Amino acid sequence: MQEIRAGLVGAGTVGGGVVKIFSKKGGYFNTELALPIRLVRIVDKDRGCFERLPVNDAVCSTDFNDILSDDTISIVIELVGGTTFAKKVVLDALNRKKHVITANKALIAEHGPEIFEAAQNNGVSVYFEASVGGGMPVIKSIREGLVGNAIKSVKTIINGTCNYILTRMFAEGLAFDDVLKEAQARGYAEADPTLDIGGGDTGHKVAILSSIIAGGYIPYEKIFCEGITSVSKDDIECAQELGYTIKLLGIIKQTDNHTVDARVHPVMLRTDHILASVSYEFNAVLLEGDSVGPVLLYGKGAGEMATASAVMSDVIDVARNIASGHPERIPMDYYRSQREIEILAVEEITGRYYVRFTVADQPGVLSDLTEQFCKQSISIASLVQREQHEDESVTVIILTHSSSERSIRAAIAEIEKADYVCKKTQVIRIED
Amino acid sequence: MQEIRAGLVGAGTVGGGVVKIFSKKGGYFNTELALPIRLVRIVDKDRGCFERLPVNDAVCSTDFNDILSDDTISIVIELVGGTTFAKKVVLDALNRKKHVITANKALIAEHGPEIFEAAQNNGVSVYFEASVGGGMPVIKSIREGLVGNAIKSVKTIINGTCNYILTRMFAEGLAFDDVLKEAQARGYAEADPTLDIGGGDTGHKVAILSSIIAGGYIPYEKIFCEGITSVSKDDIECAQELGYTIKLLGIIKQTDNHTVDARVHPVMLRTDHILASVSYEFNAVLLEGDSVGPVLLYGKGAGEMATASAVMSDVIDVARNIASGHPERIPMDYYRSQREIEILAVEEITGRYYVRFTVADQPGVLSDLTEQFCKQSISIASLVQREQHEDESVTVIILTHSSSERSIRAAIAEIEKADYVCKKTQVIRIED
Repeated sequence: MQEIRAGLVGAGTVGGGVVKIFSKKGGYFNTELALPIRLVRIVDKDRGCFERLPVNDAVCSTDFNDILSDDTISIVIELVGGTTFAKKVVLDALNRKKHVITANKALIAEHGPEIFEAAQNNGVSVYFEASVGGGMPVIKSIREGLVGNAIKSVKTIINGTCNYILTRMFAEGLAFDDVLKEAQARGYAEADPTLDIGGGDTGHKVAILSSIIAGGYIPYEKIFCEGITSVSKDDIECAQELGYTIKLLGIIKQTDNHTVDARVHPVMLRTDHILASVSYEFNAVLLEGDSVGPVLLYGKGAGEMATASAVMSDVIDVARNIASGHPERIPMDYYRSQREIEILAVEEITGRYYVRFTVADQPGVLSDLTEQFCKQSISIASLVQREQHEDESVTVIILTHSSSERSIRAAIAEIEKADYVCKKTQVIRIED
Repeated sequence: MQEIRAGLVGAGTVGGGVVKIFSKKGGYFNTELALPIRLVRIVDKDRGCFERLPVNDAVCSTDFNDILSDDTISIVIELVGGTTFAKKVVLDALNRKKHVITANKALIAEHGPEIFEAAQNNGVSVYFEASVGGGMPVIKSIREGLVGNAIKSVKTIINGTCNYILTRMFAEGLAFDDVLKEAQARGYAEADPTLDIGGGDTGHKVAILSSIIAGGYIPYEKIFCEGITSVSKDDIECAQELGYTIKLLGIIKQTDNHTVDARVHPVMLRTDHILASVSYEFNAVLLEGDSVGPVLLYGKGAGEMATASAVMSDVIDVARNIASGHPERIPMDYYRSQREIEILAVEEITGRYYVRFTVADQPGVLSDLTEQFCKQSISIASLVQREQHEDESVTVIILTHSSSERSIRAAIAEIEKADYVCKKTQVIRIED
């Protein structure tokens, strides 16, 4: 069999991991898997990385054109990140009829149709297992392992930074800002953590997974994303008292009428929920198939070697496709199709809610709060008023029975008009 | 593309699920996956099942030869179970150059080399995802999703009957025999539960997984299997007091020197271990890859639709292979190779141990027990003597530091020679 040659663009954290796996397992791929796959070129703007990595006989350079113009290379691994140069790398490679493997979730979530269109036009494929869930084979499980199922729902903890912060807030009673600072100091959070803590990173992954599940492109912009910055020590304490934990969840639900409910926000989960025990930097994806029932994948969602492991899984898949002479094994029509998938507006969802009011400690407040809930036909499951704070405000926690988001929002908007409200009201959706 | 035609042998529980998925998802496979796959023949000795199932236009009969002699059928799905007729079905199909999909763990574990040899000779493949872990894509994850890793260890709860019994013993303080009887009455346990509760079913699955991981055939007979019949209410109580639970685990560890440690036995797990929260009929597989770190798969390990889901995953994989003209995508050389894999004898393992003695309440016993442990250089981590039983015996629980199984066995053999021992000593390995 002819040698299958790969070029790597970006030898940073994940790219470095890929170089290491090629160095360690290349012989195994050749002999045990009978796949003569070899990493022949590595491109990175920082030449220093070539010294630190086991590049073996790969030709190292700083110019992507060295890979692009090498006609012996049939697989390009894009690990530069971002959506500008990375997009150019991917499209240029596809237009040169090279298969592309990427870990770039933003690129797929925001530019999927253009990319898969280019792949289709050139008779090559784009694999992106590492874009969702690091080392866990999430995309492979949905597209192959569970192919006999309609996936009814996905609930996922898929951002390690948020989960690390929330886990430490719960375990140690720390405030959000304090944990974030420490996480940044230790390298567990980015210097600019906006995309993580704002929910955008989870949103990218939810956009990708919901597109695959719904069979049509769902752009990132359509995913409702609420981050974890408003989760306070008060919320943590209340959750603990009530037997809940708080997690940032990506949620996808296929509704009956060809509409998808896809969103990202903090949720309260009962502590005996299987996702409640996913702690620190670990990630998990809970899939519900119509035949298989619940299937959970759990593992490291990020990091050098875990993500490189997912990239290598794609490399081997693409190499097997090339070896078979059938480059597009898994159709990606849903990214190319014109099929419009409707996204359920977040106002339309229903569920149970945790609502925390900070109000003045004066007569009539409780009666007004409950009256406003009653006006919106929201049934209250439990209500607790806690002792006065130092500033003489009090905390009132309401847990509702199943209500519509629209009603909850209307009730709170009405309540927040009142003078007795001392702070912005906190709402956290409860997921059963 | 030419229609890819499948025949099903055995339309019982799992086979019935496969018929249902073909009926429900056939259109999807044809249009969205562009795979013209169709179930054209169903064979079962009980004609009644054909009435109960959505067989559509499949030709139903009671004679396997109807499938065998149909040259338009390229995939045979064997779901009859057992290793006699099932083996004939599989070998006959392979020798007629038909691909085979099976859920039959005993067949693969006991006759793997013969089966894969026949597949090789005929240029066709054998897929067996459903043989391990029901609906969880375990084999696919190891062979494809984690292909960039050396799998260092597997720890798995993979028998639903045992896990159901142990979970109820813990949750409700019930005795083994009582739960087993109730489980049988409810259909959660077989009328003859020997293979489940004796560990043999877990052993078959461990044999299959360890063969894949080690890259060489490991026959079922070489797997040390100890079941759960000796786990008593006393053990449950002690485990709970100590912060442990008891699970039947399949364990595979790649040791440094090309030897595999593969075994099945009850273990004590700390209650905060991720596998400790796998309850009732659920299964889980905890894989440790050298790159990816820990990856857990969790789901239903048995049942009509969960197992059928895994079978369908294989059907689609094989159909994709046929469509690509490359029938053997995943090499199965390790089942065919002459490579001898050495299995670590259970006497050679080391670990921590829970040992429960039932001894006469008389002077000198504790001193003799501890002396025998000392003679074998076993370091005691904790020792508890509990209050006298009605029969005047007492329970002594010893938790050891890391010791060799050989030393533990030697110490107990010596101790059991003494008159003060009232009952057989219970030993449960502790897994960290």
